[in-house]
Amino acid sequence: MSQPAGPEIDRLIQLLAKLPGLGPRSARRAALKLIKDRRRLMAPLADALHAAAESISICGQCGNVDTSDPCHICADPRRDPSILCVVEDIADLWALERAKAFKGRYHVLGGVLSALDGVGPEELSFDALLARARVAEVGEVIIATSATVDGQTTAHYIKDRLAGCEVTVSRLAHGVPVGGELDYLDDGTLNAALTARRKL
Amino acid sequence: MSQPAGPEIDRLIQLLAKLPGLGPRSARRAALKLIKDRRRLMAPLADALHAAAESISICGQCGNVDTSDPCHICADPRRDPSILCVVEDIADLWALERAKAFKGRYHVLGGVLSALDGVGPEELSFDALLARARVAEVGEVIIATSATVDGQTTAHYIKDRLAGCEVTVSRLAHGVPVGGELDYLDDGTLNAALTARRKL
Repeated sequence: MSQPAGPEIDRLIQLLAKLPGLGPRSARRAALKLIKDRRRLMAPLADALHAAAESISICGQCGNVDTSDPCHICADPRRDPSILCVVEDIADLWALERAKAFKGRYHVLGGVLSALDGVGPEELSFDALLARARVAEVGEVIIATSATVDGQTTAHYIKDRLAGCEVTVSRLAHGVPVGGELDYLDDGTLNAALTARRKL
Repeated sequence: MSQPAGPEIDRLIQLLAKLPGLGPRSARRAALKLIKDRRRLMAPLADALHAAAESISICGQCGNVDTSDPCHICADPRRDPSILCVVEDIADLWALERAKAFKGRYHVLGGVLSALDGVGPEELSFDALLARARVAEVGEVIIATSATVDGQTTAHYIKDRLAGCEVTVSRLAHGVPVGGELDYLDDGTLNAALTARRKL
């Protein structure tokens, strides 16, 4: 859909519309907001994008993104090198870091096995994971893939691949989300929560 | 909420979260998509923002944004200079242009009168509109403000201000939206549509 405001704005709207969460209409609204707030929003955003594009790289060890390689998590001597947490995506790593729940190191797979989407073992970083798990200091691998069918398939595949390594393989617990109401939970979660019940 | 991926990404997420339609969570998703697609999305978006920030200005005549001043609509000799269409915002001008429904020129008010939001006549470009309407060649002013209370108030205010000028003042018709089902329409619209019924 052509805009009546010149090719520069057209192009800006087209690029904004490629971001997740923005469609053609909200991309127009975003472009308009940027145009109206040129000094405080448009120019800083352009600079931030340039700075990020130039400085960001993928960590060669874990697959995280950072301005240094290895990333600050892999380089941090206070992080426990004996535990690896396997996540699907960088967003999952960010979520765990925000929760401040994990003090080990990560391994980003880059996705999950999916027959439907044609994602096979070659597409994901299993070989690098195996190489890392074989290092003597690693004692546990926590599999933190999603609780979806593809995520669980991937978790089982990882467990099989790690069979020869001398590491404990664990996965995140299933159960009632903290703050969740039983009435709104699905049967699968309730079953898992009952099965994994713990003594008070 | 702090991100675990360095100040560059932090800043990018903060700026993206200021766009309409993006909150903190979707800004993180957008940032991650940009990071993953650095060459095809992040660098082009940075360039597009730079290009737009440098080239875009507000048209001194109508208030549109364009890379030239006067804008390409005001500068186009094929556009009828005898009809002015008054809109609240540039987004409304874009909407009318997309519909290819209007061949005259525009006047962007920059908002509507609103006692609640403290927007008085000084904040909006009424004086410029009056000056434009007094030019001999202008014969009609179409008021295309929203059909909200504030929009209608603003429309009446414009009509009063234009009383001394020798121009026809009209407003957009109210009625059933094309493709709309009567069952889903509010009483006000149905009343307006009945009152303004036309012979077939």
